[in-house]
Amino acid sequence: MEDNLNLIKRGIDELLNEEELVKKLKAKKQLTVKAGFDPTAPDLHLGHTVLLNKLRHFQQLGHHIIFLIGDFTAMIGDPTGKNKTRPPLDKTTIIENSKSYQKQVFKILDPKLTQVKYNSEWCNKLGAEGIIKLASQYNLARMLERDDFNKRYKSNQSIAIHEFLYPLIQAYDSVALEADVELGGTDQKFNLLAGRELQRAYGQDPQVVLTVPILEGLDGTQKMSKSLNNYVGIDESPQEMFGKIMSISDDLMWRWFDLLSFKSSDEMQVLKNEQADGKNPRDIKIELAKEIIARFHDQDAADAAEQSFINQFQKKNVPDDIEEITFHLDSLSMPLVSLLKEVGMTASTSEAMRMIQQGAVRINEEKIEDPKYLVSSGSTSIFQVGKRKFKKITL
Amino acid sequence: MEDNLNLIKRGIDELLNEEELVKKLKAKKQLTVKAGFDPTAPDLHLGHTVLLNKLRHFQQLGHHIIFLIGDFTAMIGDPTGKNKTRPPLDKTTIIENSKSYQKQVFKILDPKLTQVKYNSEWCNKLGAEGIIKLASQYNLARMLERDDFNKRYKSNQSIAIHEFLYPLIQAYDSVALEADVELGGTDQKFNLLAGRELQRAYGQDPQVVLTVPILEGLDGTQKMSKSLNNYVGIDESPQEMFGKIMSISDDLMWRWFDLLSFKSSDEMQVLKNEQADGKNPRDIKIELAKEIIARFHDQDAADAAEQSFINQFQKKNVPDDIEEITFHLDSLSMPLVSLLKEVGMTASTSEAMRMIQQGAVRINEEKIEDPKYLVSSGSTSIFQVGKRKFKKITL
Repeated sequence: MEDNLNLIKRGIDELLNEEELVKKLKAKKQLTVKAGFDPTAPDLHLGHTVLLNKLRHFQQLGHHIIFLIGDFTAMIGDPTGKNKTRPPLDKTTIIENSKSYQKQVFKILDPKLTQVKYNSEWCNKLGAEGIIKLASQYNLARMLERDDFNKRYKSNQSIAIHEFLYPLIQAYDSVALEADVELGGTDQKFNLLAGRELQRAYGQDPQVVLTVPILEGLDGTQKMSKSLNNYVGIDESPQEMFGKIMSISDDLMWRWFDLLSFKSSDEMQVLKNEQADGKNPRDIKIELAKEIIARFHDQDAADAAEQSFINQFQKKNVPDDIEEITFHLDSLSMPLVSLLKEVGMTASTSEAMRMIQQGAVRINEEKIEDPKYLVSSGSTSIFQVGKRKFKKITL
Repeated sequence: MEDNLNLIKRGIDELLNEEELVKKLKAKKQLTVKAGFDPTAPDLHLGHTVLLNKLRHFQQLGHHIIFLIGDFTAMIGDPTGKNKTRPPLDKTTIIENSKSYQKQVFKILDPKLTQVKYNSEWCNKLGAEGIIKLASQYNLARMLERDDFNKRYKSNQSIAIHEFLYPLIQAYDSVALEADVELGGTDQKFNLLAGRELQRAYGQDPQVVLTVPILEGLDGTQKMSKSLNNYVGIDESPQEMFGKIMSISDDLMWRWFDLLSFKSSDEMQVLKNEQADGKNPRDIKIELAKEIIARFHDQDAADAAEQSFINQFQKKNVPDDIEEITFHLDSLSMPLVSLLKEVGMTASTSEAMRMIQQGAVRINEEKIEDPKYLVSSGSTSIFQVGKRKFKKITL
């Protein structure tokens, strides 16, 4: 029980509450664990997988996972038309999106142990009357406790009345499924708690609410999202994944380990000790990148991506600490050979000429083969002569 | 046109707006005029008839009247169960109530020219999706402009979310009926205006909104209502109606004339002149009572009620200006005949005895037949000897 609980609690944001969860775990062999997904954005990125990983933990412990597709509200979209990211979707599109979703999700969850449900199954049956009754279960003051509603209300931004119905529909899903546990991002906390209250109103044991943190994107500060282009998509090629993951900061790397890695806490401690002992964090980052690529592709793809990365960047790439200079041209352009001599990258123009002929001169990693090549003012480029001489020159 | 408009505007609270109404009257021969009724309270009183009278004016001018039964929300009732006056009603009860309603209403409206509709016809078809779309048409800030919502919100009283849906459903009724005009009490103004906005959103010409004042009850200050027991029910007996109407103040009488009488403005001016010339307002009140009784019963019933009132109260009743005295008894009781002599209502106890034997002595209008009747201390009663001698005596 202790170990199970620790697995469930790892990396989460909040558990409301632990006592109830323990009681449920003792009372039932298999808990019904629900997480809702919006079928409008079928391209999953690592940000989405934080929650999926947590569902996987429950699955590992033998619980019943319900992957709930919120098709009912997706079919409605944003009726005001103001939110362009929520167009109404037809049933065919939703089923297609949902299949694409499942294909990706089942890289983390076991399809045999995951039940996919669509909430239109019970929401359509509610009818006009059912929605009104549902709406009667919650009052305005409680609704305005939700962070985003509160902020918008206080800053006089419009809140359309139907927006109050959406959390209640999500809460009603928990009633319909008799959920024991619902998982969501921290931004979902209000809605998950509404589920608890509605279940109580319907005479059910309230669900335990578990929130997972929001994963920061490649920039390390903003929420990972497609629109911010700071994401790693789980359908991206191994090379793209590798490159993106290698670009994150060392601090973010440890955050990603916490939220994305399947390594045990002990294994992670070993890596932390290695860094403390002087190991280059880049090499630890490679382990993270490979683990994630192996999960969404396979081990061979992970190895190949690593090799390709080393070939492309570590072997040929320019060093991090290049001298940067500004060189003022007297005219609009000058011969490359003269520039190389003037900035001291070659001893003479004839040496510069010879190096070009040998294929040993590059601008921005591109080999220069024309000895009469002219450089123009108004640009900044990395000039390379031979293997070791680099200068970043602004003309 | 001028006369028609004056008839429509007589006694109303607000017309939003006259310009649009004139435009509609010029464009269409027959306007669709809607008024909604809640089928939960089938006992109509004069307060309800203010609106019906106004509908009758439209009917007199040849317009199409829709008597709309709000059965959709009545079937739901108050889902929170907090409002005991709104239990959910079943279809059978609603139809019964509605028939009872119509029976009463058609004492004012012409049944052949009145269309009865039930809003469940289009509201049930909305489904869960339709309600959500409807809710998206209005925002919280606008909702909180409604007086009662605003007051409750500011005083931290609970507003259940479904309460925001009810004005929208009423507004949607106007869309479904393509109403040109909607009538309601002043307390309905917000809902009627919501109908205008929703019609605009649905590409319809917005309805003209006409509000009628709330009729004060017998007390002259509070809204006429059954629960305050200050009402005149339109199914009450002619005698009850007459008695209740005669009990109102002279000021209230003129208010009731304005809102309830079918007399023309010229006819009413004649009555006002008569009062100015010294006519007893009581006699003018009798005209009001008889007009109303004739409407809900018939002219014979009105005449009979007047006669019965005169017999019962004016002929036998005690005058308004009785002398009031206090008479201290030396013991707990004394013979009536002694009292009458002591207070000077008879010259002697033997005259008192004789008057009793003739049946000419009354206490609180009750004939005293026992010459040995004893009066007790601790009470106040009206003593009468013969036709003209009255004294209010506190013993």
